[in-house]
Parts: sequence; structure tokens; C-alpha cells
Amino acid sequence: MDEYLAKRTELIGQDRAHRLDFGRRDFYTAESEKADGIVRRIRSAEAVSVWAADNRAAQDADDVTHLFPGMAFLTAREIIVKTELFSIMSKLPKGCLLHAHLGATVNIQVLLNIALKYPAFHVRVASPLNKTTLSTVRPEFRPLSRSAWTKLPSLTDGSYTPGTWVSLLEARGNFAFGGAEGFDQWVLAALTISPAEAYKTHNTTSKIWDKFESALGVSVGLIEYLPVWEEYVRMFLASSIEDGISYIEVRVMFFSKHMLDADGGATVTHRELMLTFDRIVNEVKHTMAQQGRGDEFIGCKIIYTTLRFIPVEDLYWYTEDCIALKKEFPHIVAGFDLVGHEDTLKPLIDYIEPLTAFVARQKEVGVDIPFIFHAGETLGDGTAADVNLYDAILLGTKRIGHAFSLIKHPKLMQICRERNIAVETCPISNEILRLTSSMPMHPLPAVINHGVPVTLCSDDPAVFGNMGLSFDFFQVLIASEINGLHTMGCLARDSFKYTCLTEDEKAKAVASWDKQWTRFIDWVTKTKSS
Amino acid sequence: MDEYLAKRTELIGQDRAHRLDFGRRDFYTAESEKADGIVRRIRSAEAVSVWAADNRAAQDADDVTHLFPGMAFLTAREIIVKTELFSIMSKLPKGCLLHAHLGATVNIQVLLNIALKYPAFHVRVASPLNKTTLSTVRPEFRPLSRSAWTKLPSLTDGSYTPGTWVSLLEARGNFAFGGAEGFDQWVLAALTISPAEAYKTHNTTSKIWDKFESALGVSVGLIEYLPVWEEYVRMFLASSIEDGISYIEVRVMFFSKHMLDADGGATVTHRELMLTFDRIVNEVKHTMAQQGRGDEFIGCKIIYTTLRFIPVEDLYWYTEDCIALKKEFPHIVAGFDLVGHEDTLKPLIDYIEPLTAFVARQKEVGVDIPFIFHAGETLGDGTAADVNLYDAILLGTKRIGHAFSLIKHPKLMQICRERNIAVETCPISNEILRLTSSMPMHPLPAVINHGVPVTLCSDDPAVFGNMGLSFDFFQVLIASEINGLHTMGCLARDSFKYTCLTEDEKAKAVASWDKQWTRFIDWVTKTKSS
Repeated sequence: MDEYLAKRTELIGQDRAHRLDFGRRDFYTAESEKADGIVRRIRSAEAVSVWAADNRAAQDADDVTHLFPGMAFLTAREIIVKTELFSIMSKLPKGCLLHAHLGATVNIQVLLNIALKYPAFHVRVASPLNKTTLSTVRPEFRPLSRSAWTKLPSLTDGSYTPGTWVSLLEARGNFAFGGAEGFDQWVLAALTISPAEAYKTHNTTSKIWDKFESALGVSVGLIEYLPVWEEYVRMFLASSIEDGISYIEVRVMFFSKHMLDADGGATVTHRELMLTFDRIVNEVKHTMAQQGRGDEFIGCKIIYTTLRFIPVEDLYWYTEDCIALKKEFPHIVAGFDLVGHEDTLKPLIDYIEPLTAFVARQKEVGVDIPFIFHAGETLGDGTAADVNLYDAILLGTKRIGHAFSLIKHPKLMQICRERNIAVETCPISNEILRLTSSMPMHPLPAVINHGVPVTLCSDDPAVFGNMGLSFDFFQVLIASEINGLHTMGCLARDSFKYTCLTEDEKAKAVASWDKQWTRFIDWVTKTKSS
Repeated sequence: MDEYLAKRTELIGQDRAHRLDFGRRDFYTAESEKADGIVRRIRSAEAVSVWAADNRAAQDADDVTHLFPGMAFLTAREIIVKTELFSIMSKLPKGCLLHAHLGATVNIQVLLNIALKYPAFHVRVASPLNKTTLSTVRPEFRPLSRSAWTKLPSLTDGSYTPGTWVSLLEARGNFAFGGAEGFDQWVLAALTISPAEAYKTHNTTSKIWDKFESALGVSVGLIEYLPVWEEYVRMFLASSIEDGISYIEVRVMFFSKHMLDADGGATVTHRELMLTFDRIVNEVKHTMAQQGRGDEFIGCKIIYTTLRFIPVEDLYWYTEDCIALKKEFPHIVAGFDLVGHEDTLKPLIDYIEPLTAFVARQKEVGVDIPFIFHAGETLGDGTAADVNLYDAILLGTKRIGHAFSLIKHPKLMQICRERNIAVETCPISNEILRLTSSMPMHPLPAVINHGVPVTLCSDDPAVFGNMGLSFDFFQVLIASEINGLHTMGCLARDSFKYTCLTEDEKAKAVASWDKQWTRFIDWVTKTKSS
């Protein structure tokens, strides 16, 4: 029997030998082992006290909520925030956020509050707004130049002509369905995904993407206005730091060639955006340093993105634009990507000529802008979206956004392991966008066991409600008996490895993270031991 | 560009080199290539004509059916049966059925019709049956010895006392809720899983297992009566042959030490069951040979199973019983397994002593009964059910039932590849029992690409409605752009490799299958070309 048990332990060890947390002693201590134990005990206890509290008697009711660890996030969110395990994940130093789209990173109510400060903002609807259309008619926002400001009283007045602009402040104050509060609810519903949408009315990847794209489309009207954008970027950085994120490579959309200026004119160039962005990041770093928290925030770079539906020949303009920005702002431009719904938009192979030309041009002009491609964000097996993984890797992608279907590709997994190509996994995004129904069904545990490098990311937290990285860390921790506090620590600490920072910067960043980790472990053992 | 495309083709080739259908020319012909093309065209056409017929306008309705290829089986079934693709999968020669539980293999209405021929059958309910309890109160069936037959008129009469037996014929004829038809509906609902149960009221693995176990429990009362059992086994074999299955290793439950005889007495021993089983299989083979269809049915062996909740020491009785049966019926006993819900019942490691003793005893007495264990039928990561995979493999399992979580285990996948341990994948079962929400989320495409040997199985078709193997083949074919008719052919043809047949028998069986395949390909190209 002893012999059997020894063989068994050996086999389990071999099977788990590729895990990122296997045999790692570099930052484990007696204290962190203790904290890991505490967290495992809390998880087990809450599995019963929180996640088994399900009312079985209600099974035959029409609308049942099925509780379990790692369940659908939008339904679980209010439960998650009350758990002890979440309080721990909130405090955990997260390392880097390497996959988030700037346009969906700030809480919608916060964004709306920023916009409300600018009387230039107007809003319109394309068809009459009444009780029955309230849930389907979406607002469109735009800051107008002063000469175009209107005096219409309301969107919901009988005299309103669809398509005409109403001042945001007026429209909100005179909203017939619950006044300002009702207006905010209406905007929130348009800009976020509800549990009913994700899990009922739009319960397929294709349908939920319709709502997702609609939400992003509406929010652009509020964000792409320089005065708002400045505050928006500042809020994004502040809330990320608050969540324990110390470094960011954020995807910024450069599809529009100009952003609106303070007077509503389309005059703000990409260069001016970069100057503004640079200034804000420096201000935030300065403020943090003044507060003695300098090691909590290393910085934020930009991954230049445009949309994967542009005509192939248009991509040449964007890659040249990206090169120009990289030359002037080498410390800000981290990489290049094409974004949008892979299942329906153009595959990478369609853009192969401008993309390879882009690589050649970089060599010519002496810049280095790594591809950091979205690829394999799909349930398809052998579809164009799935096949994007081959092109991303052949084009030398530094990381892969999502790579949800990577688990189907043994050779590509091997390449990712060998070349340290990290997968930017966005577990909550994948679940809400219906690639997986819950965390236990997500391929992440398999990807981790196969030794593919991974970082956890939030993707579009403003739409999904997973602000920061705490929720994604929580969902991953709770859905596996193997993962523990050390696993989450490894995920955070290793994230620096996959960034565009220099080796020196990485080493410094990890040293800073180690200090935060020590403080965190100390806090866990002091306050959470039961 | 040519160079890029060449590298790309090479990479895709390397990535798919482990697939069971890669580079296989052994049974591909110009004709079969043509048939493969026809099937791909039909699949693409039906992806639009059938699976995109979804009414988007109905999105906001409360109860939406979301159509897509590989969608939830219970909702899709009526659509599937009308497709051209299904008509092709129905005709495809399936090879072997290697994972099915005998007690859930015959259509419930057929089973009920068999039982109705025996006046010994009685039925009772544990609590009053009325309109509101109709969906929750389950029938219990039992054949009574003649002296115990009752004269009560009905289960639904006001005078009925819960717990008392009523003649099945009387109870059915006098059923207050729709008469005989209503009675059958009530029984069917108890013995099968409905879409509402799987996808709404019991939409977690744990809840749907409650219903699943309840259904199996009720059906035992109808099946474990020798006169019914005989007809039942015959029906199972006939319907399997009809579906193109030519060889079966079926799991038979030996938990009860005796089955009921014609007079309702618990006197039928396991040995008598084997004698009956042997006789029926021989009769069926004889009939097939007489019809000149001898090569369509090779036979059916039994995998001896008991339940994974029995006290550890009780297992010794079962393993001795299994050895005794193997000695007398070496041509029937194919293997040994423990069954039941892995997430909640005892893990294999608990039974390690009797199981290793069983292996030693087999050597002593000179028999060979391979383990063919269920393992990893779970969403757990590192849970006892997931860890069962290690023990199954260490104990030398010949195949693995489900191995749903195998994709998380790189070392075990390697061992399965090296030792040709096939995974008995039950895609529809996994989906209905909520391990996956749909076929595109199932790990099977990943398992296939990683080169792990696979066979497709139906598990409990009477409960799930996936009679035969046509539905499982259909769901796998439709959910992948890589899979084609050749893939399905490889799955069928290779299934013989993983059986307990001798090498000679396997070769003969494959030769027979090849003949069926040729006829099938001929039929596809003649009748399906458009």
C-alpha cells in the first residue's frame, strides 16, 4: 500500500510539474504557507456557508438561482463582495493588468458623473422613448459646440422628435421615467450587460456580442471628448491602483482619427492624446511618490489598437500612425493589436500583407512594436477565429489576448511554453460573453496544468462589472481545489515577466511587488486567522 | 507571402498531427473524399437553414430558444432529427458502443409497453397524487407474487392510501390525469430528464444528478424482473444494431444480489442472469446470420459494475462474484467498474485495498478482468472525483469512462496516448448532466487534437433521449469545422481497437466494418449529392 501511495504521489507530482506554482520557493515563506492554509480553510467554509445556501425547495420555481462556487458572475457579484475570500482577493497585490480596453474601464456611474459636469453634452434617441421601448431604445451622446446647443426640454416629452439633440442635463432632469435616477438607470442598462441579458435573452456568444458592441458604441459618445477623457484616464489609473494593480498595458482604440475637443470639434490628434496620456500618467506617479506609495504604481503603457473590420489597405495608415507615435513616445507605446468580435470580423490572415509590411517598416525606421494580438476568443474548432492563433504566433505575438481555444492546440501550447508567450486570460469576460457558462467549465485550469504562461485580466470591466482584478482573481481561486493563495501570488508576480518593461524595470517591479506581498501576507495572517 | 503560407500549413499540420484522422489513408478512397465533401457542404448549408433560423426579434421574450449547432441536446432533439446531417449520421456504421448502462438503454415507452404485458406489475406512490403533485410525486414499480396482487382501482382515487400497491394496468387505465396517455406521460417524466429540468430547474451538476438518480431508481422497478429483462436486453440489442452498432460492452449493475423471477420472488442469481444474457446474445447473432447480416453484429459483452457507495469491505464479495462469473462465462465478462456520482460518492482510493486484492486474486485463479473505470466525470479541479483519474490509471484501467477532466492532466494524457487507454466520451450525457452547456464548450475537440484515444458513447440514452450512437456522432460532427465524415469514420473504426476482443476478433470486426463503410459511402454519394 505504501508503495502504491508513493507511486501515486509521484504521478500527481509529474502531472502538476508544469504548473506556475509548482516547486516555487522563491517567495514562499512560513508566513505565506500559513496564509495559504487560512485561505483554503475560508474557501472550504464559505463553500458551505455561502455557496451551498441554495434553496432546494425552490427548484421547481420558474426563476431559480443556482448557487455554486465559480457560478455566473453577474448573478454572483452581490454575493461575492460579501465573502471573506473576496476581502482577501481585494487586498492581494495584483501585479500587472495586461488586457483591458480603455473604453470600458471606468464605472459607468462615475463616467456619467464626469460627463454631467460638461454642459456641452447632449443626448438623443433614434425612436420614441416610452415605457415599452425603454429597455430597447439606446441613448446616443455627443458634446456639441456651443452654437449647436439646444433648448429642448426632454427626450420623453410627447413633442420630442427622434434624432434631435437634447441637453444631457435637461434630458436627465426631465426624464419621465423616474427622473434623474431613472435616467441613470436607463443609461446604465444601455452601457452594461445585465444577468437577464447574459443568461437569458442573449444567451449565446453571438447575441451577447450584439449587446456588448452596442454598450461600447454608446459609451464612446461620453468618453471620446478630451475634457472627459482626461478625467476618465485619471479615474482608471486611480481605481486600478486602489485594487492593487501596479502596472498596466492598456489597449487604446485609435480607430477614430480625431477625438472631440472642448468645443466639440473633431480636432484632437492621436499625438495630442498621447501627450495628454503621458502627462496624466506622470501626474499620478508624482502624486503616488508624494504619498510615499511610489512602489505601488510603476506606470501605464498603451497597446495601439484599431478594429478588425477596416479595409485591408486602410491598415497601412494605422501602422504608420503607430510607428510615428512610437518614435515620439517610445516609453508609452507598448504594442499593436486588432480588436473586435473574432467570430464575425476579419481573421488576421486577411491583414497578412500590411502586418508583415509593418514588421519590415519597423526594422527600417528602427522601432520595435510587438504584436500583442487577440486570437482564439472563440468556441470554434478550426474556424477562422480559432485559426487566428496560428497567425498570431507566426507573426511573433508577444502575448495572446484570450487564446480561449488554445487548449485545442498542442503544438501552439508547446510554442507558448518554449517562447514564454503568455495568454491574457479574461475569465469573467469569457463567461459573460458566453464562451463558458461558469468558472469550473473554463479551460484555465487545463491551461495552467499544461504549463502555458498565463496572466489574469479584466478585459472590459465597465461593461461586465468586474472592476479591477479582484473579481477575476476571486473566480479563479474559488473554482479549483489546487489553486491556493500561492497560485494567485505566482499569477501576480509572474505577470511582470510578460510585460514590455525592460529587464531592469521588471526586476525593480518584482522587488516592489515582493514588499507588497510581504505586507499582504502579514495582513492575512494577522487579521484572518480564525 | 508564399513562404508565410507554407510555414502556416506546416504549423497547422504539426498541430493536428496527433489527431485520429490525421494522415489516415487506410480506408480513405476517392469516393469517401467525395462523401466527406458532401457532408461538409450539407453541414454548412444547414448551419444557415436550420441553426441560424433563430428569431432575433424574440430575444427579449421571457423564454427564448437560442439555436446554434451543437446547442443543448434536449432542446435541439426535434430539430436534429429533421436534418439531412442526422439522416447521414443515422446510417453511419458506428463500430462499438463501449460505455452504456444497461438499465438506461431502452426507450421508456417501449419498456413500459413490455411491462404492461405482465399483470404481476404493480405501482404505488409515497404521497397523494394530485394536479399540483403530479410533477414531483414519482411512481414506484414492482412485480408482486400472485398472492399479493391487489384489487385497488386507482392511484388517483380519493380513497387511495399512499404506499399501497395498485395493479399497473388498473392504475394506468384509471389514471385521473389524462387516462392511459396521461399515465404514460407521468411515467415518462419520472424516467427521463426534461429540457426544463436540465436547463432551468436543475441546472447544476449536483441538482441534475438528483433527478438522474431518481429516474434510474424508478426504472429499476420495471427492469429487474426476469421476464421483462429478457425482452429488455433483446430490445437493447435490436435497437443498437438498427443504429449501426456492431459490438457492445455494456455495463450491467450487479448491486442487487438477486433479480425478481416470474413470480416476483428475489431468486434469480447473477449466474442465471448470465445464462439468460448469453442465450439472448446467441439468439440475436443467429437471427442476424439467418438474415445474411451476420457481419453487422459481432456480439455484446458485460462490464460488471457495482455502486461506489458500498462499504469498502463489501467490495470483496462483488469481486469474488465477478471472478466466479468470469470463470464460467469468460466470453461474456469484459471488465469491472464502480459506478455512481463521482462528485459525491466514494473515490477509488477508498477501495484501493479490495481493488488491489482483486488484481492479485485474478492472477491466483488465472482470469483476466480488466478494470474499465469511470473517472474524472466532474468539473472539479483537484477534487476527489478529478483525482480518481490518477487511481484509475495506476490501477491499470483499460479504458476510462468519461475522463471529462482528463484535459487538465498532461501526464495522464501522455500515458493514455502511450498505452492506448481510450476515453469513453459521452458528449450528450456530459451536456445534460451539466458538465458542459453545449457541444462547442465540450473538451472533446481538445482531447482529439492532443491525440488521446477516444470512443463516442451514449451512457444512459433512455434517460437522455440519445438512443443509439447517431445523436452523439451528430453532436460531435456538427460542433467542429475540423471534424468531417472521415473523422467520424475513424472514431467508429478505431473503437474496435479499445475493446476486450482478441486481436483476431478485432481484425475480423474491422474487416466487416470496412464493408459496411463502403456500402455507407456509396449510399452517401448516390443519395446525398446535391
